Amino acid sequence: MDLVKIDETLDDLQIKDIHIIQKKEGFRFGVDAVLLANYAKVKSNQTVIDLCSGTGIIPFIIQGKKSPRHITGIEIQEDMVQMANRTVLYNKFQEKIKFINEDIKNLAELKKLERVDVVTVNPPYKLRNSGIVNEFDKNAIARHEICCTLEDVIKAARTLLKDNGRLFMVHRPERLADILCLMREYKIEPKSIKMVYPSVNKAPNIVLIEGQRDGGAFLKWEKSLYIHKENGEYTEELNEIYGR
Amino acid sequence: MDLVKIDETLDDLQIKDIHIIQKKEGFRFGVDAVLLANYAKVKSNQTVIDLCSGTGIIPFIIQGKKSPRHITGIEIQEDMVQMANRTVLYNKFQEKIKFINEDIKNLAELKKLERVDVVTVNPPYKLRNSGIVNEFDKNAIARHEICCTLEDVIKAARTLLKDNGRLFMVHRPERLADILCLMREYKIEPKSIKMVYPSVNKAPNIVLIEGQRDGGAFLKWEKSLYIHKENGEYTEELNEIYGR
Repeated sequence: MDLVKIDETLDDLQIKDIHIIQKKEGFRFGVDAVLLANYAKVKSNQTVIDLCSGTGIIPFIIQGKKSPRHITGIEIQEDMVQMANRTVLYNKFQEKIKFINEDIKNLAELKKLERVDVVTVNPPYKLRNSGIVNEFDKNAIARHEICCTLEDVIKAARTLLKDNGRLFMVHRPERLADILCLMREYKIEPKSIKMVYPSVNKAPNIVLIEGQRDGGAFLKWEKSLYIHKENGEYTEELNEIYGR
Repeated sequence: MDLVKIDETLDDLQIKDIHIIQKKEGFRFGVDAVLLANYAKVKSNQTVIDLCSGTGIIPFIIQGKKSPRHITGIEIQEDMVQMANRTVLYNKFQEKIKFINEDIKNLAELKKLERVDVVTVNPPYKLRNSGIVNEFDKNAIARHEICCTLEDVIKAARTLLKDNGRLFMVHRPERLADILCLMREYKIEPKSIKMVYPSVNKAPNIVLIEGQRDGGAFLKWEKSLYIHKENGEYTEELNEIYGR
């Protein structure tokens, strides 16, 4: 069987020779997913669930860098799940990663899964009604809250995490009030925030957040991450994350 | 009458020859108050109430830089109110600024005041039980939530603001989840955040927040403010704020 189809590419993640299959024309992973996979604290004896998993980029990077016991990716679009499972086969990760086709709003199904130490999620950032052209467009589903809202994501994380388990999320800074208030509502206490800036003299455009299920209240701010230096080159920290 | 007492100093704010009276040994204003007074958007036809006003530093800087129609400072410690009112006399601001001795938890009294366009507040940052030695110590009252909590501050702002009026607050980043969730609870929508860093490579240690009474949900992140350059000198932006 040919693992990579005619409308797909096979891309080298530059980590231990891991490659990922992506649609040529579809949603392709960006810096947000890479930053989240690096930010998530995952130990080798832990289990992970990645929500809204798409191509599976976050599980593959986490597997490459942190080698946890097992990662399950949950994705609502069936063809994406099939593609991600072909990436599993390509990299011979059958013992370590699997993708399942499920709607994260279906809490009854989520409850049947074994609870995990870590949940990661790079959810759709934009509110449902902000400029959507076509609700069946895969790009729109990845970017807008069509199939799930921020509240659905946090509810799912609450359902899937063990006691004191950790949620790691990447999102847009303008949604931070929504994020922190919903985390509190579902008793996933915000524990750590790292802001990401395009460069020192710009406003932040990405936020990385760690929450703990039933954690105590104390929010630590980490050093910021800057993507570019003032001369336009990537910063050392970003190059290190990308293994350059 | 001698306006400045033996245990007090008279300090030049470096703005239009305005001076402020402070206790030699008591709580003296810091960079937080200066940053808040600069951050607050205040027009010349507007009215302002400053909560937890202390020496009155925030009203005096706002008066010097933005010259609003009137500013009222509310302070629970009677001797601080008397001192701040002597600073009013010293600067001949009797038409522009007054300080009143009131507990901001006393909402019935606050409701008797005319509602304002802008509320500013540099509240006590620390939780009540975090290492207080003496609850009658004026430094402890300024720094710990002894006389009022964050919730009391936000409730008072809700009570004092006109519809769509603006709240400007300075606080610690580690309290941001508390701040945003309480603002939402009392329907003061977070509209803008500016993070302040000791320098580029450190975690932020001050946050400036703007909220709007019954405002619509959209949170804008401003460019960060850095206090020091990497060589330890003050940044140009900070020097500009201090009028240096």
